[in-house]
Amino acid sequence: MGGDHGPRVTVPAALDLLDRRPDASVILVGRSAEIAQELAKLGRNVDERMAVHEATEVVQMDEPPASALRNKRDSSMRVAIDLVKAGTAQCAVSAGNTGALMAISRFVLKMLPGVERPAIASFLPSQRGRTVMLDLGANVNCTPEHLLQFAVMGTALVRAIEHSERPSVGLLNIGEEDIKGNDVVKEAADLLRASSLNFYGNVEGDDIYKGTTDIVVCDGFVGNVALKTSEGLAQMLAAYLRQEFRRNLFTRVLALLALPVINRFKDRVDHRRYNGASLLGLRGIVVKSHGSADAFAFGFALQRACDEVQNGLLEMIRVRLEPSDVEKAS
Amino acid sequence: MGGDHGPRVTVPAALDLLDRRPDASVILVGRSAEIAQELAKLGRNVDERMAVHEATEVVQMDEPPASALRNKRDSSMRVAIDLVKAGTAQCAVSAGNTGALMAISRFVLKMLPGVERPAIASFLPSQRGRTVMLDLGANVNCTPEHLLQFAVMGTALVRAIEHSERPSVGLLNIGEEDIKGNDVVKEAADLLRASSLNFYGNVEGDDIYKGTTDIVVCDGFVGNVALKTSEGLAQMLAAYLRQEFRRNLFTRVLALLALPVINRFKDRVDHRRYNGASLLGLRGIVVKSHGSADAFAFGFALQRACDEVQNGLLEMIRVRLEPSDVEKAS
Repeated sequence: MGGDHGPRVTVPAALDLLDRRPDASVILVGRSAEIAQELAKLGRNVDERMAVHEATEVVQMDEPPASALRNKRDSSMRVAIDLVKAGTAQCAVSAGNTGALMAISRFVLKMLPGVERPAIASFLPSQRGRTVMLDLGANVNCTPEHLLQFAVMGTALVRAIEHSERPSVGLLNIGEEDIKGNDVVKEAADLLRASSLNFYGNVEGDDIYKGTTDIVVCDGFVGNVALKTSEGLAQMLAAYLRQEFRRNLFTRVLALLALPVINRFKDRVDHRRYNGASLLGLRGIVVKSHGSADAFAFGFALQRACDEVQNGLLEMIRVRLEPSDVEKAS
Repeated sequence: MGGDHGPRVTVPAALDLLDRRPDASVILVGRSAEIAQELAKLGRNVDERMAVHEATEVVQMDEPPASALRNKRDSSMRVAIDLVKAGTAQCAVSAGNTGALMAISRFVLKMLPGVERPAIASFLPSQRGRTVMLDLGANVNCTPEHLLQFAVMGTALVRAIEHSERPSVGLLNIGEEDIKGNDVVKEAADLLRASSLNFYGNVEGDDIYKGTTDIVVCDGFVGNVALKTSEGLAQMLAAYLRQEFRRNLFTRVLALLALPVINRFKDRVDHRRYNGASLLGLRGIVVKSHGSADAFAFGFALQRACDEVQNGLLEMIRVRLEPSDVEKAS
């Protein structure tokens, strides 16, 4: 029910997933009347691969997480997470309030042993493929141990999704030299060097999009700023490009001619293809879609969740939190 | 002498400044033989508006600031700052090692009264014009008081350069709500609200390029990551666009046709036009150029320094550090 568009987006995306993934089934959680209306509009009926589960409340996008946790026990978000806890569902996907989703997930599902803080991880495009970045905003204050745990979870995510055996980990800093950065980052570098992870060393902001490492680890404040800054820059560049192509008749004709090129460019950097942030560290798989996602974008978040289930992400995180890594973190 | 290109870039840019600004004069500091060679190449002689000041040493780009400060007393960087201290020069511009430039400037020039930490500030393009962002890397650990002082100095910079009377200040955070962020940011918001500055409130990363406020204040770690992330994203997008236009003969012809449009777009976002970061908080005007700047870009750093002198930036910072603001910070 969540996100800016609710069932208008989530229902068609779920139906599309059923068509793409014959082995998947979905439970649509929310106000059943609204869901039924969307299904009717699309000419689909509930069948053995699709159930509707009633939830009468909705967590508002600007609702404080604590209030959502306390007062919205019959929200679509809470009920969906409860279904994961009960084992009825293998994963939950929501386009709703991030803070509330994190708080509810943490309360209901609990943390994996050895993980003190959950993290939000997302794939970003890079010149070499994709970079996983975490944390993107779950934790504003992190210890070196938290950053090590993020590195462990990011490694498991890349292994599960990209099937690469020993993905490289970069620690986001303001210089490549070991002496740079604040104390937390310096200590985290020591922990990472001593771990069994494939630690590359310090990376800087531009390395995210260069693809210098498979994973970039940082605290949630820095990660969130980097992500939002990127969104703002991309929007500004797109607006400028549009303005230049609309300047006069000649440039408008050019824009029409260049449409296939521009569309292919847009496709490559389409943020909708990167929609779906993983809430890592929980005893269950939860994926957060961007609130403004359309059905195309929401579909990517659904597929990410399916991939995480099918490729055994939770087990990979558990295995990676082996004594050699965790000892140093405790 | 500094930067990636040395006198090959700085000398022609300085000559160009003399042509543009009849009221300016320059002192070229460095190895006089190399400078003379560049001047000869360009067919120019030393005259009453241009002097050469010998400095035999060069601070290396990767040299630790402490070592540069201790051992390079006859470096071009140190000698140029000494000239500012002596009042022989009104400002210094360098494309050299940022950390060394900051350490030397702070040691030689000292801080303005009421400023505990210097900050690096730069203009960035936005959808509404330009945004000043600081700190961009001078301070990895900041107190709320430091952030307030950055806001004061950023306000003075915008007043001096953009001539706007009450520029707005945004505090970089990971959500617009007051409850968001870490303790330092929350306390800084309280200080800013109580100050006489035009405080807008919290802003997020995307607001930098939206131009929501004239000034965005953050600690140097976050600011540096945001800046470098932007550089990386811009480079990736440029590389993708180039690849798409080079895909085949048809797209190459399109690229030729679209050249005027693309060039105008490039012009608008040309980072060279934003070259020149101000080292604020010192008892003297120092501007840092990007190490890789060409003569066109270095010229913008020179002009920024001239503007800061002519528009009385130091006095504006001093006036803004009035009791009503400083009291709360002490």
